[in-house]
Amino acid sequence: MIKAGIIGSTGYAGEELVRLLMGHPEVEIQYLSSKSYLGTSYSDVYPQFNSILSESCVSMNVKQMAQSCDVIFLALPHGLSFNQISDSILEKTVTIDLGADFRLKDTKVYEKWYGIQHTKADILKKAVYGLCELNRKNIEGSRLIANPGCYTTCSILSLAPLLAEGMVQPRSIIIDAKSGISGAGRSVSLAVHYTECNESVKAYKVAAHRHMPEIEQELSIIAGEEVLLTFTPHLIPMNRGILATCYASLKRSSPLEEIYELYREFYRDDYFIRILKPGNLPETRFVKASNFVDIGFALDERLNRIIVVGALDNLIKGAAGQAVQNMNIIFGLPEEEGLTAIPAVL
Amino acid sequence: MIKAGIIGSTGYAGEELVRLLMGHPEVEIQYLSSKSYLGTSYSDVYPQFNSILSESCVSMNVKQMAQSCDVIFLALPHGLSFNQISDSILEKTVTIDLGADFRLKDTKVYEKWYGIQHTKADILKKAVYGLCELNRKNIEGSRLIANPGCYTTCSILSLAPLLAEGMVQPRSIIIDAKSGISGAGRSVSLAVHYTECNESVKAYKVAAHRHMPEIEQELSIIAGEEVLLTFTPHLIPMNRGILATCYASLKRSSPLEEIYELYREFYRDDYFIRILKPGNLPETRFVKASNFVDIGFALDERLNRIIVVGALDNLIKGAAGQAVQNMNIIFGLPEEEGLTAIPAVL
Amino acid sequence: MIKAGIIGSTGYAGEELVRLLMGHPEVEIQYLSSKSYLGTSYSDVYPQFNSILSESCVSMNVKQMAQSCDVIFLALPHGLSFNQISDSILEKTVTIDLGADFRLKDTKVYEKWYGIQHTKADILKKAVYGLCELNRKNIEGSRLIANPGCYTTCSILSLAPLLAEGMVQPRSIIIDAKSGISGAGRSVSLAVHYTECNESVKAYKVAAHRHMPEIEQELSIIAGEEVLLTFTPHLIPMNRGILATCYASLKRSSPLEEIYELYREFYRDDYFIRILKPGNLPETRFVKASNFVDIGFALDERLNRIIVVGALDNLIKGAAGQAVQNMNIIFGLPEEEGLTAIPAVL
Amino acid sequence: MIKAGIIGSTGYAGEELVRLLMGHPEVEIQYLSSKSYLGTSYSDVYPQFNSILSESCVSMNVKQMAQSCDVIFLALPHGLSFNQISDSILEKTVTIDLGADFRLKDTKVYEKWYGIQHTKADILKKAVYGLCELNRKNIEGSRLIANPGCYTTCSILSLAPLLAEGMVQPRSIIIDAKSGISGAGRSVSLAVHYTECNESVKAYKVAAHRHMPEIEQELSIIAGEEVLLTFTPHLIPMNRGILATCYASLKRSSPLEEIYELYREFYRDDYFIRILKPGNLPETRFVKASNFVDIGFALDERLNRIIVVGALDNLIKGAAGQAVQNMNIIFGLPEEEGLTAIPAVL
Repeated sequence: MIKAGIIGSTGYAGEELVRLLMGHPEVEIQYLSSKSYLGTSYSDVYPQFNSILSESCVSMNVKQMAQSCDVIFLALPHGLSFNQISDSILEKTVTIDLGADFRLKDTKVYEKWYGIQHTKADILKKAVYGLCELNRKNIEGSRLIANPGCYTTCSILSLAPLLAEGMVQPRSIIIDAKSGISGAGRSVSLAVHYTECNESVKAYKVAAHRHMPEIEQELSIIAGEEVLLTFTPHLIPMNRGILATCYASLKRSSPLEEIYELYREFYRDDYFIRILKPGNLPETRFVKASNFVDIGFALDERLNRIIVVGALDNLIKGAAGQAVQNMNIIFGLPEEEGLTAIPAVL
Repeated sequence: MIKAGIIGSTGYAGEELVRLLMGHPEVEIQYLSSKSYLGTSYSDVYPQFNSILSESCVSMNVKQMAQSCDVIFLALPHGLSFNQISDSILEKTVTIDLGADFRLKDTKVYEKWYGIQHTKADILKKAVYGLCELNRKNIEGSRLIANPGCYTTCSILSLAPLLAEGMVQPRSIIIDAKSGISGAGRSVSLAVHYTECNESVKAYKVAAHRHMPEIEQELSIIAGEEVLLTFTPHLIPMNRGILATCYASLKRSSPLEEIYELYREFYRDDYFIRILKPGNLPETRFVKASNFVDIGFALDERLNRIIVVGALDNLIKGAAGQAVQNMNIIFGLPEEEGLTAIPAVL
Repeated sequence: MIKAGIIGSTGYAGEELVRLLMGHPEVEIQYLSSKSYLGTSYSDVYPQFNSILSESCVSMNVKQMAQSCDVIFLALPHGLSFNQISDSILEKTVTIDLGADFRLKDTKVYEKWYGIQHTKADILKKAVYGLCELNRKNIEGSRLIANPGCYTTCSILSLAPLLAEGMVQPRSIIIDAKSGISGAGRSVSLAVHYTECNESVKAYKVAAHRHMPEIEQELSIIAGEEVLLTFTPHLIPMNRGILATCYASLKRSSPLEEIYELYREFYRDDYFIRILKPGNLPETRFVKASNFVDIGFALDERLNRIIVVGALDNLIKGAAGQAVQNMNIIFGLPEEEGLTAIPAVL
Repeated sequence: MIKAGIIGSTGYAGEELVRLLMGHPEVEIQYLSSKSYLGTSYSDVYPQFNSILSESCVSMNVKQMAQSCDVIFLALPHGLSFNQISDSILEKTVTIDLGADFRLKDTKVYEKWYGIQHTKADILKKAVYGLCELNRKNIEGSRLIANPGCYTTCSILSLAPLLAEGMVQPRSIIIDAKSGISGAGRSVSLAVHYTECNESVKAYKVAAHRHMPEIEQELSIIAGEEVLLTFTPHLIPMNRGILATCYASLKRSSPLEEIYELYREFYRDDYFIRILKPGNLPETRFVKASNFVDIGFALDERLNRIIVVGALDNLIKGAAGQAVQNMNIIFGLPEEEGLTAIPAVL
């Protein structure tokens, strides 16, 4: 059994991680840490765990956890992972960071977008970007995973094949993304007050969201050239789910069927990526509470513009599920282990 | 492996049954029948099953199914089960009927409430009412289960201990129930049009809902005397869940703690029943997509009136989950097998 | 033109008051006060007022307002109205208090339920309970109106005719009420976080809500005897609306038609009360954003129990609309003035 | 008083038209026609009109209506307006068609997108496209108004100033639009079943929606050159509202402030267009149930791409409100008459 510790277990990503790991046949949870709910029974924080989980939340002590845990998951706000991770920790335990601190390879870019100093440039070099389908080989031997953001995962997986094949103009890309409210986290604010976001839709942080440089970084690697794109996130009155509608200009005219085949081939070994036949488009409900990513296409032939629509669950494939998938890869387990739940559509 | 056939597999209860059975380690689905989607791939009807389930819907042929299936689940509108079930079918296979045709013991009551003739009075006598926690012994040896209704399960389980102990006046009971829209099924109508039920709440079929006589029948058995009660269902703008707020006059003054202990004792062996400590009340989200029933209490001491609040998922414990639980009991499996999903709250 | 000041103008009730008064042909708003948004443009707080309202929020100064305002509306949390109202203020201006401080006639009851001392017992005696349809005569000459609570208005109006006629047993009454989330106000908390109340329903403060003694006080006056009842509020995932499902035991058997006629007669002069014909039941959407109260009935003949269902908009007839109606009565305007908006159902 | 007849009064656009016209001080409704609810009391179809409107629905008889009505509103599915409108009708009465039959100037384009023959090419020539802010002069003397589609109005108004000034590359435009479910109309189907669209978001008819050629037609006129663009509609789980996120490549680098001033100037005389200051973005709730259009901006400077976000209420400015606005223009009334409702945000 893999012994796991979860730091920041009472945020939404943390809770989903607990839920997934408790259903994972090869994992045993050792620690649930929470600053906000220290000493509180986990099932008092999240009553869905009543009669299932009797543990209480402990304080964050990575050193101690590293002694007895094979893997530590960090689900912390940005800036808080730096002090938790060191070479000696990584020697003892695998660390999967669901936060943003080790995703951007360039500390200057990090500092620009997050507004704080990056104090662990040395550790950053060891971090592997944990987008499983695209980075599986590097993940296998890694001790520190930077688990990607939710918008990021959806956007990159939707566009990767086109860029890998050099089919689209790299500066023509626009990603118009729509996210459920859980993406804003569990902290209270007027912005997530029920009556302030119900029955409404809005764009926010247009061309200014922190996931944008992360998407550009990874797509640039895939494309082999610099990719700059426009990213617009929107808030949708629903709990879960991200839909990314991605637009790009094709370098040459290509029929939809060809693009479909390209994607099928590109993701042929990836259980969690489902490529929809031309004529079908994803809906977030069809991936709800699962680790799947559904991808569909349409073509504006007149303008030679491809529209790729990707859908995933922001808390699963966009956070906790991908973290578990990374763990599975590192520990040599089947990648789907503990992640086979069929989407619960309703 | 238990071989299972599902008739009426494309309704909401049918779909949840497919989802649960595919995750059940001891079950293999043999047939998915659907009148509306005959010949259509199941994953075209429900794209969440893409890459998971490749079967197509077949026509309903119970005789043939009975040859190769150990258990047949019927998820049909009322009146349609009569012609499917016969002694020879029941000899060959266990039948679990999620519909209403074998729930009411008195065919006259059935005919009054459902407006059609009951043509299988002989078979009706063999049917066992499948409310697992209260009827486990009879279920064990049964060949035909009448799986209870969703409102019914929630109401009966919330009130059973009080009536079994004779603590409340049997004609004082009022059940004010609130259901998500999936309880209305998948058939289209103006009543379930998004904009006709979103952002609104209403009562319907007040003191006239078909689940009322079913609740009265079972509570009367438990009480050992005739129970007549008032039942008011309401539609709530959400997908899943039932909350039943039950009111009853206590025969004698009892502290909340005593009632709590009574419930704890009554359900001490029932994994799926979670009795909440005084001060806590259930919310439907905490049982979402799970087979749990959460029950909490409050007391109006001035009026010596007890308020019991029960919550369950109408499609799981109120339909497909309980059907699987019944199957587990009949086939001697652990009752929780295939039903251990932790509620997916968001 | 009636000159009006609004204190606490940036809460939800305050905002609706501003919206209604701006559409009122006889009113001119003089002051918008807000502690939280002092100095901020009102349309920055509520962008729906962009290009409509250019005023900024000022600090609360009742004395000064009283000099120039004919009427002052207070929309403050409980306990904060005491220091604002004095005899000299009431001499100069009419005050309509949307808060709870002058609703309960007995300061001891107030202190028990609100947990703070009532420091204005003398002023309390002068306050008139502003349930317009039942108290019109007293409202006419009043200088201080205690505007009723939202649950209260819905419950009392739904039950008043039965109690006025002595038709029901006063200790048999149960009110099972369902409210949209705006009833919880605009203050942020985990309880009103979108993802914590979306897709769920719950009861709260069962038999312990502060509107319960208020309902009992007023129904006791109407009945001419002490009324004790059980009141259970529920939170529904929608913005607006209250549905009160009220149960009571009839003293003698009465056909539904008789009860319908009783209500028609009782409310024959009340424009805002709409009595639905037997067979129809209210839905909150049909009164949305309006000052109407819809009331319908069902009868459980077997148990001689009447079920009355009332619906209103918690922010209009349950708060701001009724406040305007009170103003209209006091200033001798047609009661409907400024309140004739047809419900905006969608 | 202007006498008005409404054909197709029981669809959602028709209902909103009835609601608006009843609040309009210069209008008297003469006829409410409905094929589906012939002979039924309007308030039985829409109970929000209880005690407000006692008329019943009559059959569609345009000839007769034209005798006594000054204006007829048609709110019919496409293809059904052809037989209703003739020169002799237009001589007698002003006709405002909320449907699609007279929007596209080229009958071939109409026939391609709507799949039926256009049988009134002669009448089509007389129709004026009723986008009030852009076409006011032509509307003034018109007898037949083609009231624009909901997506169309939002998209065109959001982009018009940029195209009028020749600031963007005409083939670079992408419109990613999000609509509430009421946009799909009141007809029942699985697609609008509550549980099939709640808690989910999807794109549909990507680059294939009938409003796309309508947008292109009008923007081409404004631009003075052919505009081809990509239009992607999405369904959002909410009742009302459209948000159009529009992307275009600027021909030359321009600061946000310059674009803001351009829009302010362009719409300086248009009460219903609210241009948001840089840094602010629209949300559909801020225009809910009103005739306003809110427009905001962001700039991706690196890519010289402007993002314009427009929001309106699809049933008001996107249908019934604009129809009333057209009527006001034609009859020489103030354009805001009957349309001054402040958005009801909650």
